[in-house]
Amino acid sequence: MFRHIVLLSWVEDATEAQKAAVEAGLKQLPGAIPELRRYEIGPDAGINHGNHDFAVVADFDSEEDYLVYRDHPTHQAVIADAIKPILAGRAAVQYRL
Amino acid sequence: MFRHIVLLSWVEDATEAQKAAVEAGLKQLPGAIPELRRYEIGPDAGINHGNHDFAVVADFDSEEDYLVYRDHPTHQAVIADAIKPILAGRAAVQYRL
Repeated sequence: MFRHIVLLSWVEDATEAQKAAVEAGLKQLPGAIPELRRYEIGPDAGINHGNHDFAVVADFDSEEDYLVYRDHPTHQAVIADAIKPILAGRAAVQYRL
Repeated sequence: MFRHIVLLSWVEDATEAQKAAVEAGLKQLPGAIPELRRYEIGPDAGINHGNHDFAVVADFDSEEDYLVYRDHPTHQAVIADAIKPILAGRAAVQYRL
């Protein structure tokens, strides 16, 4: 199994509608990208200060399947249209399980 | 289910032995903290530039169980003894699955 994690933080003036658009856009991806085996996304619970605002955990059978997801046009469209306009910070790791 | 994610990056002069000590220390935690339901850790695969160096994904039955893990003395000892000496950056999210 191969896992991709990305943690995102939003600009201070990001609206609830903009944040909801990110979640709605990402939720389309399992239907559009059959290589996605498991996809667990969501906003930070607000327990700890200094956290990022949103998490994406995506599991694949292989590194090659992750690359299909990474470069998929539907995914790239969500990044360009919903994520980038409100993005303040990003941290990522891919690792083998 | 309640998930904790932390992505860590290491200082440039961190040695392989120091990085291995982090992994060995964290691997003790499922045996020491019964609240941990799933624990999947590992170094970044090196595919993408700008990534953090190490990922920790910990799943719990509840937010309360995550707090037991967060504040557990065995966990805090790994942070103080193995992680902090080589820590360059940290990004975290907790979220509900």
